[in-house]
Amino acid sequence: MLFLRELPPLFLFMLLLFHANLVLAERSGYIVHMDKTFMPKTFPSHNHWYSFIVDSLESVGVESLDQYRVPRSLVYTYDSALHGFSAMLSHDELEAVKKLPGFVSAYSDRSVTLDTTHSFEFLSLNPFTGLWPASDFGKDVIVGVIDTGVWPESLSFRDDGMTEIPAKWKGICEEGQDFNSSMCNKKLIGVRYFNKGVKAANPNTTLSMNSGRDTEGHGTHTSSTVAGNYVDDSSFFGYAVGTARGIAPRARVAMYKVIWREGRYASDVLAGIDQAVVDGVDVISISMGFDGLPLYQDPIAIASFGALEKGVVFSSSAGNERLIGSLHNGIPWVLTVAAGSTDRFFSGTLTLGNGLIIDGWTTFPSSALVFELPLIYNKTLSSCTSIQALSKVGNGIVICENGSVSEQSFYLSKTNVGAAIFISDDVETFEFTGFTVPGVVISSKDGLAIIDYATKGIMPVASIVFQQTLFGKKPAPVVASYTSRGPSPSYPGILKPDIMAPGTLILASWIPNDATAFIGNNIALTSNFVAISGTSMACPHASGIAALLKGAHPEWSPAAIRSAMMTTANPFDNTHDYIKDSFFNYRIATPLAMGAGQVEPNQALDPGLIYDATPQDYVNLLCSMNFTQSQILTITRSNYNCSSPSADLNYPSFIAFYTNKTTGVLVQKFTRTVTNVGYDATSYKVQVTPPKGSILTVEPDILKFGHKYDKQSYSLTVQYANHNTREIAFGSLSWVEDNGKHVVRSPIVVSPMIPVW
Amino acid sequence: MLFLRELPPLFLFMLLLFHANLVLAERSGYIVHMDKTFMPKTFPSHNHWYSFIVDSLESVGVESLDQYRVPRSLVYTYDSALHGFSAMLSHDELEAVKKLPGFVSAYSDRSVTLDTTHSFEFLSLNPFTGLWPASDFGKDVIVGVIDTGVWPESLSFRDDGMTEIPAKWKGICEEGQDFNSSMCNKKLIGVRYFNKGVKAANPNTTLSMNSGRDTEGHGTHTSSTVAGNYVDDSSFFGYAVGTARGIAPRARVAMYKVIWREGRYASDVLAGIDQAVVDGVDVISISMGFDGLPLYQDPIAIASFGALEKGVVFSSSAGNERLIGSLHNGIPWVLTVAAGSTDRFFSGTLTLGNGLIIDGWTTFPSSALVFELPLIYNKTLSSCTSIQALSKVGNGIVICENGSVSEQSFYLSKTNVGAAIFISDDVETFEFTGFTVPGVVISSKDGLAIIDYATKGIMPVASIVFQQTLFGKKPAPVVASYTSRGPSPSYPGILKPDIMAPGTLILASWIPNDATAFIGNNIALTSNFVAISGTSMACPHASGIAALLKGAHPEWSPAAIRSAMMTTANPFDNTHDYIKDSFFNYRIATPLAMGAGQVEPNQALDPGLIYDATPQDYVNLLCSMNFTQSQILTITRSNYNCSSPSADLNYPSFIAFYTNKTTGVLVQKFTRTVTNVGYDATSYKVQVTPPKGSILTVEPDILKFGHKYDKQSYSLTVQYANHNTREIAFGSLSWVEDNGKHVVRSPIVVSPMIPVW
Repeated sequence: MLFLRELPPLFLFMLLLFHANLVLAERSGYIVHMDKTFMPKTFPSHNHWYSFIVDSLESVGVESLDQYRVPRSLVYTYDSALHGFSAMLSHDELEAVKKLPGFVSAYSDRSVTLDTTHSFEFLSLNPFTGLWPASDFGKDVIVGVIDTGVWPESLSFRDDGMTEIPAKWKGICEEGQDFNSSMCNKKLIGVRYFNKGVKAANPNTTLSMNSGRDTEGHGTHTSSTVAGNYVDDSSFFGYAVGTARGIAPRARVAMYKVIWREGRYASDVLAGIDQAVVDGVDVISISMGFDGLPLYQDPIAIASFGALEKGVVFSSSAGNERLIGSLHNGIPWVLTVAAGSTDRFFSGTLTLGNGLIIDGWTTFPSSALVFELPLIYNKTLSSCTSIQALSKVGNGIVICENGSVSEQSFYLSKTNVGAAIFISDDVETFEFTGFTVPGVVISSKDGLAIIDYATKGIMPVASIVFQQTLFGKKPAPVVASYTSRGPSPSYPGILKPDIMAPGTLILASWIPNDATAFIGNNIALTSNFVAISGTSMACPHASGIAALLKGAHPEWSPAAIRSAMMTTANPFDNTHDYIKDSFFNYRIATPLAMGAGQVEPNQALDPGLIYDATPQDYVNLLCSMNFTQSQILTITRSNYNCSSPSADLNYPSFIAFYTNKTTGVLVQKFTRTVTNVGYDATSYKVQVTPPKGSILTVEPDILKFGHKYDKQSYSLTVQYANHNTREIAFGSLSWVEDNGKHVVRSPIVVSPMIPVW
Repeated sequence: MLFLRELPPLFLFMLLLFHANLVLAERSGYIVHMDKTFMPKTFPSHNHWYSFIVDSLESVGVESLDQYRVPRSLVYTYDSALHGFSAMLSHDELEAVKKLPGFVSAYSDRSVTLDTTHSFEFLSLNPFTGLWPASDFGKDVIVGVIDTGVWPESLSFRDDGMTEIPAKWKGICEEGQDFNSSMCNKKLIGVRYFNKGVKAANPNTTLSMNSGRDTEGHGTHTSSTVAGNYVDDSSFFGYAVGTARGIAPRARVAMYKVIWREGRYASDVLAGIDQAVVDGVDVISISMGFDGLPLYQDPIAIASFGALEKGVVFSSSAGNERLIGSLHNGIPWVLTVAAGSTDRFFSGTLTLGNGLIIDGWTTFPSSALVFELPLIYNKTLSSCTSIQALSKVGNGIVICENGSVSEQSFYLSKTNVGAAIFISDDVETFEFTGFTVPGVVISSKDGLAIIDYATKGIMPVASIVFQQTLFGKKPAPVVASYTSRGPSPSYPGILKPDIMAPGTLILASWIPNDATAFIGNNIALTSNFVAISGTSMACPHASGIAALLKGAHPEWSPAAIRSAMMTTANPFDNTHDYIKDSFFNYRIATPLAMGAGQVEPNQALDPGLIYDATPQDYVNLLCSMNFTQSQILTITRSNYNCSSPSADLNYPSFIAFYTNKTTGVLVQKFTRTVTNVGYDATSYKVQVTPPKGSILTVEPDILKFGHKYDKQSYSLTVQYANHNTREIAFGSLSWVEDNGKHVVRSPIVVSPMIPVW
């Protein structure tokens, strides 16, 4: 079963999303991939062919139409990112289709699972130097966002300061419910919606918002994160106050709404991506993914291959499933983005009567007055789960410990307690945003001094000032607890995720008619900007950077852009130590959590060397997998050349696996080719940090380039003897330019094999 | 008994002020006025003389010191705005003082009673034309604010963009509790505090904030209204969002804290004004007043006379007592300011399920989500005072009627009701800011449609969007319900108030540790900016305009500045009809409510003609009153010349009285002299609007001026035969320049006599 889940479980209040249960009528939705070269010349277009196919199924079987809950129908035809159609078919009808010439593959339509604003500063984007000015802030780049729609009135989508829409744009601003075509402008240049899948599967359901208008918030947030215009004085209830802006503030947004409250269907997702490619987007940003599917059944893997061939950069989220091997969108030809934290901290400043000052975590959504109130701590009260006991406290500050802050907030909100101090060491609690009573979270270490004063002080009192935003938190970034870890179960042979970007508590636009916080027992609040977390929020950061790189280097392929981002990524945090993983007790993060590391946009502008790859390279990789011809054709759409199968894709990272059966020394050899995109006549030396228990051999260990765009190849051999530990070992290989100007770093992982989808 | 009451009763939550009860010990505080010409030459200073007087009282009586609860002591000496001292004295000691040479008068120390930001726009202040640029935004003008202190960290008191402090400034930044001298800057140039009166009267009390720091908010609000710096993104919980600024944004603020939580004493108020004059302020702004005192006992009347002689403009609030004849600060030599509304409206937009949209009044202090909730109306519930009945409603919108919104809010906050619609026609309810539950106030006229839909609609629902700020409300301004009406009981012969300025829901800075709103049952909120109402808020608007005029016309006397503001004031509202009085059922406002009308700063810059007055003119007026020599000397301090007593002060307004005993036709003749401050060689014709039942005669009816600064005199005779109606009749006299450029308008009132203090 597939669920929208790029939002971490912590943000339960966000999950107003309906989990569509497939109605198992006698007819149901199928996506059918066709080889278009088989199309008879008599059909003027693919639409005619696919219509004819569906219409001609009338003779299949003998059942009357009445016996089916839904009529047989053609839902979508696809002709760009993929070739084929989706249709409501009975089992017999499907079988008939499978026998037709040109049939490649078919599978059930399926439910997709969904997965700013200080982050630009944290990423060192600067209006005067680096990637922003080099790319003109992305002004000629179009980003297609595949999501829940958009709230066009959000200030992030005003077009102040935007120049004319690039001539290449072929999209439209589709009319619909509460949406007219004048709602697009030079920022939000296109909006389309794709509802045929959801309507075909739910013929008796009325869509609650049948247009590109967002009723969930997710798409408004992701699209404003990629490329929102400047919005002064935005905040999340007084936290993160400042001028919000997208990562590519002058890039254009085209929204493709494919996710509906009434259901989320692969057929709609495919239609959205297919149209985005036709419309001429440069980058596709998709913060959602399908779990548990092989590549040839994963709509995103299939559609992104078509996008790749058109030179569209495809950026996707890794998912919020936390565990090793839980990652989705681990597709060799897309960019897969993990989520990290920023150095921002939403704080309540706690001042004890004895003068001690502690900054706690809070997002209580108002400027509560907590001034010199009695501080109350006793063991019978401190679980903060008894409404009866708490109700006797009155207007004081209760110290709560040993429990869930969310649960304790709930009980406190039923009482007249003035405020609360929650003592907790749960890392996720320090990202909690569901404060319904004035309270702060304090670590147990800091909590000791508070409890000491509360128990031994004479008439202990405390004050809390809310709506504080602190910067410079250390360490930062750290890998978010929720981000899905590799290896990729859809294809483990390529190290995934690729990169980490800010995903935790990202401020961006939201829909105005949704509860984004609560005060007390029953007062729901709304906000035009919200700070939420997930790889859904990290992906649009990477998409925005990709858009800027596309603006600065229009000639770069999607693989080159990904390579630039990966080889310049930073494995270190703001304490100059290795980035840590908050889910694994702050141990050093492995590349399975964060890929090459934290994305560094200004460095990616000038990476020195590039690991490029062509569509044929990916075909060669596909040919090396144990796929049938029709499975490969489902992805490649047309005839393909399998003469040079190779698992050794020219990728800027390395992963080697061992299994329970591996004995002796694991040896794996990789070959790579790098392209000089720096200056003429330069030379690089290799520098390696071997994974624990491994020996690395690089041949040659010096690469000399005569001219820009020269290519050089090398091999890396990993010898690993430590596999009985079942540890994930990791290291890196860097090509360091002799003048020290460029360091081209690739992560290396040696890992036990995982179960594959 | 005297109370601080320039804040209207509606804003009860603001009234955290302690009402000091005088401790009637055997010794108590007296203010003693002395004629300094009697000071023996042997004393090097007035301090020595007054000290000697108090010390020499040791021989008075035979009681031991122990018998008195407080020691005999000199509290303050005064030497600028007044001459004399305050001291803690026994009755016998006071009697001894009275026999000393140079004694003028003495009275008990007494408790004073206290009485921004779209208003600058509403007043048409414009950075490019008119009074703002003409005065350099007040940059060389110093405004002394006599109040509760100041919160120096308020953003309104940052000195960004301020030039060097004018050389004339002689004040200091006094250190004290939580206050060091570095807290002053080029905006807040001076802070002093005066606590000797409160301490002498309460010798066993510790002051809770013994410094110039404001713990009440009032002084922070008034001083930021006069001359606060620009503060971006200020708001009152999301209402009135914008860049706040004082009326004279580049003028300097000097705060004189004279009001204490522990008591408010005339001796401290006098000391503050006295020091402000010494320090070199140009304008004094005082939003408080003493009720029930004759001029010669009113500390503000006394100290302001001294200020006048030094050329200091003295601006004061009329009070919030509503009724005819309740006005205070009705002092002939000060500016007395009434309060009006602005055209701003804090709104919740109510949308009914049938599509009807109504803007209601609300300041609910957060962005509550009230989206398509059931709308509930029934007669048993609609009083909204039964917690039990309301608790059964759940998450719906209850319609409340026939009650106090404040009280209904209270009951609703004890329940889980989602939101409320309050149907009310009470004018003050449309200024109410104590919303503790999401709710809007709707007039009964608009309420009809809501009740109709709620009772007849099928599944009626409604949505409310909060934090809306609307402009252009009509009519505006209207006279505020709370503003105290004239005539002035301390001297009815001069028409008071002089002028009206915005006083209702003025956004300005506030102290951060005070509850300025509540949500639900128990959550108190704080805000750095608050929107509050009162003549306390109107006064600093007028003070700021006076400061700007002083900057533009440094040569103008206080009387000239007042004249310019009065004769250019606007009696019309934004519907081009006469300004209405909200307390008197929206009838046309009389000059007893608003003086000459709404202040028009840009017109006041260039008034054409001026009604000037010298200190001697005020002495002549005093001499015409039935005052004793010592009563006059108390005000004038030194010898005065009573050779030309005259009640016919050269004032830019006219008031005539009749009593129960008046028979036949009331005839009163006024003479006035106007000074041409426009261009050379011009001519004015009179135009009159006679008060109902009166005949006006003006002689001459044309005034010709050869040169700038020429003076011309005229007489106005009012004949009134309508006095048996006991009505307040009003009209006006305008001098209209032949070229139409200047209209110099004066209000005229004929009124029954009131009781005089």
